[in-house]
Amino acid sequence: MTENPLLAMGQAARKASYALMGLGGEAKNRLLAAIAARLLQDEAAILAANAEDMAAAQAAGLSGAMLDRLQLTPERLAAIRADIETVIALADPVGEELESRLLDNGMRLSRRRIPLGVVGVIYEARPNVTIDVAVLALKTGNAAILRGGKETVRSNRALLASLHAALEARNLPTAAIQLIDNPDRGLVTALLQLDHYVDMLIPRGGAGLHRLCIEHSRIPVITGGIGICHMFVDRAARLSSVAELVINAKVQRPTVCNALDTLLVHKAIVAELLPGLAKALQDQGVTLKACPEALAHIGALAEVAGPEDFDQEWLSLVLGIKVVEDVEAAIDHIRAHSSDHSESILTDDLATAERFVNAINSAAVYVNASTRFTDGSQFGLGAEVAVSTQKLHARGPMGLDALTTYKWIGQGHYTARS
Amino acid sequence: MTENPLLAMGQAARKASYALMGLGGEAKNRLLAAIAARLLQDEAAILAANAEDMAAAQAAGLSGAMLDRLQLTPERLAAIRADIETVIALADPVGEELESRLLDNGMRLSRRRIPLGVVGVIYEARPNVTIDVAVLALKTGNAAILRGGKETVRSNRALLASLHAALEARNLPTAAIQLIDNPDRGLVTALLQLDHYVDMLIPRGGAGLHRLCIEHSRIPVITGGIGICHMFVDRAARLSSVAELVINAKVQRPTVCNALDTLLVHKAIVAELLPGLAKALQDQGVTLKACPEALAHIGALAEVAGPEDFDQEWLSLVLGIKVVEDVEAAIDHIRAHSSDHSESILTDDLATAERFVNAINSAAVYVNASTRFTDGSQFGLGAEVAVSTQKLHARGPMGLDALTTYKWIGQGHYTARS
Repeated sequence: MTENPLLAMGQAARKASYALMGLGGEAKNRLLAAIAARLLQDEAAILAANAEDMAAAQAAGLSGAMLDRLQLTPERLAAIRADIETVIALADPVGEELESRLLDNGMRLSRRRIPLGVVGVIYEARPNVTIDVAVLALKTGNAAILRGGKETVRSNRALLASLHAALEARNLPTAAIQLIDNPDRGLVTALLQLDHYVDMLIPRGGAGLHRLCIEHSRIPVITGGIGICHMFVDRAARLSSVAELVINAKVQRPTVCNALDTLLVHKAIVAELLPGLAKALQDQGVTLKACPEALAHIGALAEVAGPEDFDQEWLSLVLGIKVVEDVEAAIDHIRAHSSDHSESILTDDLATAERFVNAINSAAVYVNASTRFTDGSQFGLGAEVAVSTQKLHARGPMGLDALTTYKWIGQGHYTARS
Repeated sequence: MTENPLLAMGQAARKASYALMGLGGEAKNRLLAAIAARLLQDEAAILAANAEDMAAAQAAGLSGAMLDRLQLTPERLAAIRADIETVIALADPVGEELESRLLDNGMRLSRRRIPLGVVGVIYEARPNVTIDVAVLALKTGNAAILRGGKETVRSNRALLASLHAALEARNLPTAAIQLIDNPDRGLVTALLQLDHYVDMLIPRGGAGLHRLCIEHSRIPVITGGIGICHMFVDRAARLSSVAELVINAKVQRPTVCNALDTLLVHKAIVAELLPGLAKALQDQGVTLKACPEALAHIGALAEVAGPEDFDQEWLSLVLGIKVVEDVEAAIDHIRAHSSDHSESILTDDLATAERFVNAINSAAVYVNASTRFTDGSQFGLGAEVAVSTQKLHARGPMGLDALTTYKWIGQGHYTARS
C-alpha cells in the first residue's frame, strides 16, 4: 500500500489539536479577535487574490450564481468579521461537566465535554466558508483540514495566510488550520482515508459530494444539507393562512435546503384551496408541477408532474403539488420521498397534528409553521456548523456542541474492580 | 448496478421500525416479557439446535474457547432471561423531551428523543448476543438486522423463532428482528451498503471486522471494543498500592477490552517498584515484555519487548512494561499507541493527575483506579450496547440512550419566517 499523500498533514493537524484542546475560552476568543483584526489588515491582499480567482472563473465561463458566491468585497469581508464577533460572543462548550456521580465504590465518575480533535471539511467555491469553518473549529479547540473548490484557491491561500499570521501571533501552531490547495481530485479520496488523524468529516456541498463521502470515507461523515421538504395542508387547516406559509417556505430563499419542494394537499380542500393558491404562487414566479388530481383544478397554472418530480430538491422556484387521501397518505408519501430534513403540517386538528409529529422522524417537524425555520440562527444556536439529516451524533442545525465530544473521567482512591 | 440482495430485508426492517417507534414503554416491556417467556417455553428446541451447532463445530475442530462461547445450557438460558428482566426494569429513554423553548416569534421549539430506526449488528459465534441485541433494540423501539457467526446459525434460527413468536403474540411485525443466516460473506458487504434502510451499524468482533466496516460501510459505524489500555505509575504514586491495581487491571479478566496492555513506569521509581511488582505479576502467570531500561531491573522475570509489542491488545496474560522519563513522556507514548479506550494514572500529585486527565482524550481516563471499570454496568448504565472509542455520537460504554436520536419539533401559529 502506498503512503497517503496527506499523511504529514494529518499528523500535523493531530499534533496541533493537542495545543488547541488545552486553551481556555478567553484564549480562544483572543485568537478569534486576532483573526478578525488580521483579515482587516490583509484586506487588500485578500481582495487582490480574489480578483485573480474571479478573472480566471470568468475566463472559464462560470455561471453568474457561481461567480457571485466566489466574489469577496469589502462589505462581504466586513460581514465575515462581524460573524467572527458573533462567534466570540458565544459560550464555549468545551470543559462543561455533563454529569458527575459518586459510585458505590467511592469512585467519582464524570463526563466532560472536550473538542473532537481534527475536523475535515470539503466545500465548494465559497471563500467565506474558509473563515467560517476555521473560526468555529478554533472556538471549540479543534484543528481543521480544509478542501475548498478549486476556483477559489487563490482567495483561500490569502485567507489562510491571515489565519496563520493570527495563529503565529498567539504562539499557536499554524497546522491548526491547513488547506488542501492542490486541485488533484485524488487528494479528496486521500482525505477520506485519513481516519487515524481526522475525527469528523463535514461535506458542505451537493448530493454528489455527499454520496462520494458516504461511499468512500473511513472517517465518520456528517451527512445533511439536502432537503426534500414537504408541507401537508390538512383538511382542518386555516385556509386563509395557507398561501402566506407556502409562499414563505417556497419563495423567501428558494436556493437553500430548508425551502419547500413538495406541497401535499388533503383531497377534501383541493377545490377550495388550490385555484387561489396556484394563482398566488404563479404571481411569485413559481412553476408548479402537479399530480393529475391537482391538475384537474389548476390545469392552466401548472405542468403535469412526472413521478421523479417528487424526489427533487428543487433549489429554485419550482414546486411539486400532490393531492393525498388523508394524513396517513401524506405520512406515507413523506416517508418514501423525504430526505429527512424538514416537514410541516398545517392543521387546526390536534389529533392530526399529533399523529403527524409522532409519525414523521425528519430532523425538524413543524406544526403550522414554515419549513424555513430549520436554521442554526433561527433555533438560537448562534452558529451553524452544518444541517445534519442523519441520526447519529447531531440532527438538524448543528451548533458548537456538535464540534465536541466527551470523555469519562474516573477519580478513584487506588480503586480496583471487585 | 445490480440490486442489493438484502434490499427487501432493509425495506421490511424500515417498515417494522414504524410500528415499533410508536410503542410506549409498557408495551415494549410486555414484549420483552413475552420474549423471556417464549425462550423458556422453547428451551428444548433451542438446546437441540445448539447441540447441532456444537457437534458441527467440534467436527470442524474449533478451539475450546470458541466452543465455550458457542454453547448454550439451561443455566446460560436462565441468565439470558434474567438479563431480559434487567432490561425491562430500565427506564425507557424514548419520548423524553431534551429541551423546550419558546422562541421570540411565538413558536415552541423542542427536542424529543426518538428511536434510531433500524440498527445493524455484526457479531461472532455467540448466540447470547442474538437475544441481547434484539432486546436492547426493541426496548428502544428499534428494528434490527443481525448477522451472527456462521458456526451458530442453527442456534440463532431457533432463537429467532422464539423472538418471532413473541412479536406475533404481541401483534408486531416479525421483520422487527431479522437474521442474515446465509453464510455467504458477500451478504456482509451487502449489509454495509444498506444505508437507506439501516441507521447505525455496530460491529461486535475483532479488529478485522472493525476495519472491514470502517473501510466499506456506507452506514454510520460505531467503532470500538478494541482497547490498548495503559496505566502510568507516576513517581508520586503510593507504591504499596500499585501491585493490587496492576494485577486487577491485567489479571482479573485478561480477554476483555478494558484489561491492561502496557504499564508505563516513571524512571525515578523503577528500582524500587519493578522487581517486586514483576515477581507479583509472574506469580499471577503474567508474561512480561519489557523495554531495555526495565529489563535491567527485572531481567530474569521478563522478555525483551519489540517495538510492535507496544501496539498490542494482548487479550491474554501478557503485559508490556516501559520506563518513561515523566508524565509528558507517558502522555506522548499513550497518544502514539493508545486505541482511545481506557488509560489510568497512579499518582498522589494533584498537578500531575490534572495534567494527565486534561491531556489524554481516551473514552475513559482514570486517576488511581483500574482500567477494568470501563463497562456499562460499572458505570451504572444498566445495559451495554457496545463500548465506543470513536468521538461521534457516543463514547465509552453505550447505554440505551445510544440507540436513540432526536428530532426538533416546532409548534407554530401559522408562523412564517420573517
